[in-house]
Amino acid sequence: MIQILFLFSLLVLSEAAVQDFCVGDLTGPESPAGYSCKKSDKVTVDDFVYSGLKMAGNTTNIISAAVTPAFSTQFPGLNGLGISMARLDLAPNGVIPMHTHPGASEVLVVVQGAILAGFVSSANDVYVKKLNKGDIMVFPQGLLHFQINARGIPSIAFVSFSSPLPGLQILDFALFANNLPSKLVEKTTFLDDATVKALKGVLGGTG
Amino acid sequence: MIQILFLFSLLVLSEAAVQDFCVGDLTGPESPAGYSCKKSDKVTVDDFVYSGLKMAGNTTNIISAAVTPAFSTQFPGLNGLGISMARLDLAPNGVIPMHTHPGASEVLVVVQGAILAGFVSSANDVYVKKLNKGDIMVFPQGLLHFQINARGIPSIAFVSFSSPLPGLQILDFALFANNLPSKLVEKTTFLDDATVKALKGVLGGTG
Amino acid sequence: MIQILFLFSLLVLSEAAVQDFCVGDLTGPESPAGYSCKKSDKVTVDDFVYSGLKMAGNTTNIISAAVTPAFSTQFPGLNGLGISMARLDLAPNGVIPMHTHPGASEVLVVVQGAILAGFVSSANDVYVKKLNKGDIMVFPQGLLHFQINARGIPSIAFVSFSSPLPGLQILDFALFANNLPSKLVEKTTFLDDATVKALKGVLGGTG
Amino acid sequence: MIQILFLFSLLVLSEAAVQDFCVGDLTGPESPAGYSCKKSDKVTVDDFVYSGLKMAGNTTNIISAAVTPAFSTQFPGLNGLGISMARLDLAPNGVIPMHTHPGASEVLVVVQGAILAGFVSSANDVYVKKLNKGDIMVFPQGLLHFQINARGIPSIAFVSFSSPLPGLQILDFALFANNLPSKLVEKTTFLDDATVKALKGVLGGTG
Amino acid sequence: MIQILFLFSLLVLSEAAVQDFCVGDLTGPESPAGYSCKKSDKVTVDDFVYSGLKMAGNTTNIISAAVTPAFSTQFPGLNGLGISMARLDLAPNGVIPMHTHPGASEVLVVVQGAILAGFVSSANDVYVKKLNKGDIMVFPQGLLHFQINARGIPSIAFVSFSSPLPGLQILDFALFANNLPSKLVEKTTFLDDATVKALKGVLGGTG
Amino acid sequence: MIQILFLFSLLVLSEAAVQDFCVGDLTGPESPAGYSCKKSDKVTVDDFVYSGLKMAGNTTNIISAAVTPAFSTQFPGLNGLGISMARLDLAPNGVIPMHTHPGASEVLVVVQGAILAGFVSSANDVYVKKLNKGDIMVFPQGLLHFQINARGIPSIAFVSFSSPLPGLQILDFALFANNLPSKLVEKTTFLDDATVKALKGVLGGTG
Repeated sequence: MIQILFLFSLLVLSEAAVQDFCVGDLTGPESPAGYSCKKSDKVTVDDFVYSGLKMAGNTTNIISAAVTPAFSTQFPGLNGLGISMARLDLAPNGVIPMHTHPGASEVLVVVQGAILAGFVSSANDVYVKKLNKGDIMVFPQGLLHFQINARGIPSIAFVSFSSPLPGLQILDFALFANNLPSKLVEKTTFLDDATVKALKGVLGGTG
Repeated sequence: MIQILFLFSLLVLSEAAVQDFCVGDLTGPESPAGYSCKKSDKVTVDDFVYSGLKMAGNTTNIISAAVTPAFSTQFPGLNGLGISMARLDLAPNGVIPMHTHPGASEVLVVVQGAILAGFVSSANDVYVKKLNKGDIMVFPQGLLHFQINARGIPSIAFVSFSSPLPGLQILDFALFANNLPSKLVEKTTFLDDATVKALKGVLGGTG
Repeated sequence: MIQILFLFSLLVLSEAAVQDFCVGDLTGPESPAGYSCKKSDKVTVDDFVYSGLKMAGNTTNIISAAVTPAFSTQFPGLNGLGISMARLDLAPNGVIPMHTHPGASEVLVVVQGAILAGFVSSANDVYVKKLNKGDIMVFPQGLLHFQINARGIPSIAFVSFSSPLPGLQILDFALFANNLPSKLVEKTTFLDDATVKALKGVLGGTG
Repeated sequence: MIQILFLFSLLVLSEAAVQDFCVGDLTGPESPAGYSCKKSDKVTVDDFVYSGLKMAGNTTNIISAAVTPAFSTQFPGLNGLGISMARLDLAPNGVIPMHTHPGASEVLVVVQGAILAGFVSSANDVYVKKLNKGDIMVFPQGLLHFQINARGIPSIAFVSFSSPLPGLQILDFALFANNLPSKLVEKTTFLDDATVKALKGVLGGTG
Repeated sequence: MIQILFLFSLLVLSEAAVQDFCVGDLTGPESPAGYSCKKSDKVTVDDFVYSGLKMAGNTTNIISAAVTPAFSTQFPGLNGLGISMARLDLAPNGVIPMHTHPGASEVLVVVQGAILAGFVSSANDVYVKKLNKGDIMVFPQGLLHFQINARGIPSIAFVSFSSPLPGLQILDFALFANNLPSKLVEKTTFLDDATVKALKGVLGGTG
Repeated sequence: MIQILFLFSLLVLSEAAVQDFCVGDLTGPESPAGYSCKKSDKVTVDDFVYSGLKMAGNTTNIISAAVTPAFSTQFPGLNGLGISMARLDLAPNGVIPMHTHPGASEVLVVVQGAILAGFVSSANDVYVKKLNKGDIMVFPQGLLHFQINARGIPSIAFVSFSSPLPGLQILDFALFANNLPSKLVEKTTFLDDATVKALKGVLGGTG
């Protein structure tokens, strides 16, 4: 009996360094593969659990909607594991505007209400569908897509991504919420000056 | 105006073959990367939407629970996109027994009730937590884990995987629901003959 | 001497099936990893050479520019090799409008003239620079970017991608050159009805 | 002659930072892709050679067997290279009990004696075979498998993995050699209380 | 009891298509990810076992050595699993000449005799070591390396690769055993005409 | 209006850590996935632009040619992005001698003059072609290849790689420009002593 315990401790020790997971240490150096790993003897079950999606996001805003991310930045237990989540809250008139995730595909499941969702492919084909509670839809990596409340009640969805850090590029923010000169926006989108300046005004852009 | 349309049609045509997605054709040859792609001119929005998780799974069984998969086999729109889902239904005494997903990490979100969930690492460390509605938990790839109803009401969770075909190896099925000879089970698990034979009886195993 | 030749033929034969490359057979089944492989005994050097980027693209159009792709669809020798190219031609007022490549990063080298190029990050930061002949610039995967002729002469660049099928989603085409209903465009972009309808008119969109 | 040496030194210098390999520095920060790289000017041939598999593991224990790993933790030269090894020693009654490698496929070659080996698939199919000296067998990623001495002499195998840190989760250790409460083990495995407590006793588990 | 069996059969059926493995069907279409998958109901344990490395390769040849591959072409069970093997036999004067594996790193274990092995890095640094029985050495992906018998007895090693189809480019065969014109060999290697022609003569090259 | 700005700032802040890119910090720890990331608030557009390929390399040397790399070591903006470039300059008699890139496929575009280029496969098949201005050619990963000026004027090409750090192993340097003992070179290449010593003399090798 002593012998087996002895062997087992050896085995267990030798395996103690095995990298089953790499809970992100946001204070350490980052690599192209993600955050540095927290020392494994400091890791507890709380590193693998996240409660930040429990509460509705604040939808008292112009889009009447909120995206609450649980990416590896918010939930470091996901670091290196190829997956992440977010919660979508859409008030009755809520819209998640056109956006992309540069580095991930997305699956959405409706858990309350109904959502009209769609994406556009590289071939410019349009895929739009009204999703009811329990329906799921997949949005292939990097393509423009959107979600709109499709029933007069608050709607909620959980979305999952094929990356712990999928990115989120909201089209209107990318074009109108920064210092990208109006002239460049106009030249590269065919929008007219008045439209660009109006939206820059609304979204806080300059230039 | 004619000119731009001409250029654009050229561009659009040349891009028509771009592989933004590869909806699975389950009748074609399979490769290590997944199913063959359905011809893109046959693809419609319905290939990207799945309603099979809408209804509760049947929990009138010994585990009082059900796993309903939306892997690329059931939902071919996921093929090649690095992600999939499943729905867990746990009746008041429901248990998803010890299992692994050989090729994927998993994120779980509780949408009704409460669930006690846990996993064991390669270093044999135990990570267990009671999850309430809205809590999420991640289970790193390939490790043994389980979910148990933690409140006296039907509980529901959606789980996502970092692969379109994550696999599902339920420990008791792998050991006791096939023709793996009892002697081999005993030798490789240290369980005694009576226990192995009893479980083989319950789970339909032979040998 | 006979002996070595004998051994060598054996070795060479056994290796003949090795998959150094997988020239695309566009008539065979596609997988998420790309096209089927052409039989290796039919492969010749011409499968690895492409002359389609030799000539300037036709820039007599509204953007005064042309993108000529050499993706695995046009140049099947690239299939499975993780890389592809394209040629950009920009007449004096030429613009490659805002676009993304959903599945690849891009490197651009200017070989004639000068180009003002830029991209916007997920954090909405803007990175813009005038590139002269011989300068190179990298555009990280999936982010909105553009190129504009920055000198009064025809400018040319070669761009390379980290995928044999990088995709190309031109923003204006995705929004205005298809049957995505105007109402959905407006709701998801904050553009007004007149702007959307005008651009749909120019770009051939309906709805 | 001077000129060529000059050019060559330039080339060699510019290439000196090329990352052909990344010998693990176990004292530096870890990333999801593995250990930090040892400075290349400190790397010697001894970083690429490991002698820890030379000697038989100690099999004087209850399983009459030993697993000696040469993973990147023991042999840092493997870091980042997608491969690792281990040595299996099985005394006449030796058994490597049911286990998985969460992140890797395995190939085994018998170099002495004979071994009965097997694995169970996600579909619960059983694949078992007696392997003689020189036979090789592959165990697909993440699936439960085992090895048993199949001849009355000490048997030896070398196993290789498709990852530098494949992990090793031994079923009985995961269930019975830690503080996972007996009740949870019972609920999630259908084993009875006496069996669980007996095995916890043998394997040093608590709870 | 009926109920559980009912649920279980459903589960098992739904999982039957899960892609734990993809045994190669060498008659089907190939993709960049490997061979097509054999239908899973035709797969038996013999697909996962290979006996072709049991016997010594024939070393009665000019290099007094033999490489016997167990790549996915010879052993289709490896297809898609990221690993393969080969056996090296070196007669007393045996040499495995300078070669590379274009798509894989390699680990070698000596099981009989002794071997002098080495590789050269991109920085032109040389890493050479005499390996005795039980020693292992890793050769990073794509670099030139060699193995030489280092003891006056037949020596044997098993080598594993981080790919099911690692490729094998033997330097002398690539230069002298084909129709690459002597002039091109000379221009690109700095070897003189007499040397090139002599080696072409020995190795069966033309041109 | 205040509200939307408030929501937007929250969103923007939460996204600020998103890893769209990982500009290399060459002073930080390296991982198998590349260099550490420069802090994102220090990143400017100049990190994504490189001018080092603007000028011709110095071809006044024995090969009458120069390779100027823009790998992540020279151009850290490429770190983690799966792509890199280099410039080839070939004086009228210029030759880029036989070489491999251990970790990447390559695409070449001729922008001035003409180049005779070729590679040899694992099956020892030869693929050679004269490329004129505008032609492109792909060299699959890890295979021996070369480029020779094919017209009596200085020729220039840009090459792209499917990795930010593709490596570059020049055959003659690997064999003759280091301290690999002549005897080992001879045994592993079948070259005679005089040839080896002469080339070692030219290329600065010892031993």
